[in-house]
Amino acid sequence: MLLTGGIQNYPGFQGIAGFELVSKFKEQVELYGVQFIYGEAIKIEKSEECPGICFKVSTGSVESYAIALIFAFGKTPRNLNVPGEELKGRGVSYCAICDGPLYGRKKVAVVGAGEQALDAVNLLANIASTIYLIHNYDKPIGPEELVDRISNLPNVKLIPNSKVMAIGGTFKVEKVIVTDVRTGEKSEIGIDGIFVEIGYETKTKWIKDLVRLTALGQIEVDKECKTSHPGIFAAGDVTDTPYMQVVISAGQGATAALSAYRYVQGLKGKAAARVDWRELKPSVIK
Amino acid sequence: MLLTGGIQNYPGFQGIAGFELVSKFKEQVELYGVQFIYGEAIKIEKSEECPGICFKVSTGSVESYAIALIFAFGKTPRNLNVPGEELKGRGVSYCAICDGPLYGRKKVAVVGAGEQALDAVNLLANIASTIYLIHNYDKPIGPEELVDRISNLPNVKLIPNSKVMAIGGTFKVEKVIVTDVRTGEKSEIGIDGIFVEIGYETKTKWIKDLVRLTALGQIEVDKECKTSHPGIFAAGDVTDTPYMQVVISAGQGATAALSAYRYVQGLKGKAAARVDWRELKPSVIK
Repeated sequence: MLLTGGIQNYPGFQGIAGFELVSKFKEQVELYGVQFIYGEAIKIEKSEECPGICFKVSTGSVESYAIALIFAFGKTPRNLNVPGEELKGRGVSYCAICDGPLYGRKKVAVVGAGEQALDAVNLLANIASTIYLIHNYDKPIGPEELVDRISNLPNVKLIPNSKVMAIGGTFKVEKVIVTDVRTGEKSEIGIDGIFVEIGYETKTKWIKDLVRLTALGQIEVDKECKTSHPGIFAAGDVTDTPYMQVVISAGQGATAALSAYRYVQGLKGKAAARVDWRELKPSVIK
Repeated sequence: MLLTGGIQNYPGFQGIAGFELVSKFKEQVELYGVQFIYGEAIKIEKSEECPGICFKVSTGSVESYAIALIFAFGKTPRNLNVPGEELKGRGVSYCAICDGPLYGRKKVAVVGAGEQALDAVNLLANIASTIYLIHNYDKPIGPEELVDRISNLPNVKLIPNSKVMAIGGTFKVEKVIVTDVRTGEKSEIGIDGIFVEIGYETKTKWIKDLVRLTALGQIEVDKECKTSHPGIFAAGDVTDTPYMQVVISAGQGATAALSAYRYVQGLKGKAAARVDWRELKPSVIK
């Protein structure tokens, strides 16, 4: 959502930048005293005080305790998994809308064959001097009109039937090494930046023993946003909901929150009631 | 939603009047050419051209044809079902927030024992000269603090253990006839308006042969907002979703729309493709 340039379909706003809508959401929940901990959760352990305080969530540097959890970490851009990709933020980007403006009159590559890659090329065509679209098909795959338009842009060069083998550069991206899959021929293209636009994945491996996942790795939820584990709920693109839209995710967020509230209320009189959960402040791991 | 004074929990707005948010929603869909037909749908027939144009929806004065339907007619205020209640809009109201301001320095009755009735009394206490709270219990039922506050207001008179038998008046409401359920004693109270605040019901009897309902009369939907009938979808408070919140209903609306879209796309190549559904203009019944 943060990476989306203009959202037209969120009810209440005829058009709003993703980051602006996110800011509004954030300010609104802060009014109610919601605490934010920044970091990537990497481990969840069942606490010894369960039922009661059931979960210990760790980001590696901070530990938090919780009676209930809501997973809402969405989807993550898919990586190329090639050498040199670690130059993230130094020429390797996964978001043309966010980082495109940094490449005025520069040479960039876009990797991907689908609509996401085509949208990136379309946007960068107004900014960069040359755009190389590297993909592993004869023709990009997307709405015919968009494919035609992009193929005819003077500053766009299609590199079909090709695979990215590596990204080169010392302190920042300088080139991309590509193999033609038909001939096996290798070539180098000098670039200042590379946009990886090959879809999204659901990064749920780290919780696979906790909640039931679909074959695609999405968290299975019911209509009330309950997962297979009592006290764990999920909302948004990380779930097996078939549609991705901000308002659908927001609705699920509210549903998950109300279900979690009901769950915590239901524990009253049981172990949870003996816990003063207002005291559950996150602690820094020494 | 239209009847709600201030919505605090719709993400994106820190506080907004219901009618204002509704207006924003309406303007936004109008941008995309959505047509509105005002009227109460009273009959749905399966069309002879089904599959294809499957449904004929009638309001009594207008007939419309549709390939897919989304039910989203929410809940309706419950009626008292007493003589005189037909003075709706002439003193009988179901919404204190909407109609309260019409009763400045006048005498009004509020019917109901629950939080909805208490909220109405609380609001009207700042507007009307006298408010009679008529209910069938010893004490109103709601948050203790609210019950105490209302019981102590100088212009509020509690009429406990009482049932409304009739509303009196010729052209507009003039009085309410009440029976004390313990003694059987009847009394008349002179009023200018009466607010019926006894909850909501799901008015789905007219579609009970079309889609599966719960025991409470709510429309059963799955996670994708599909009902038991192919091509019919439902969203919001009319469904069996356990929580009532604007953002949850809005999310379901989007889900139902996308499911309906997918359904119509799936019919392509079948009968529906032979129908130019852009030509399905509503027709006035002669």
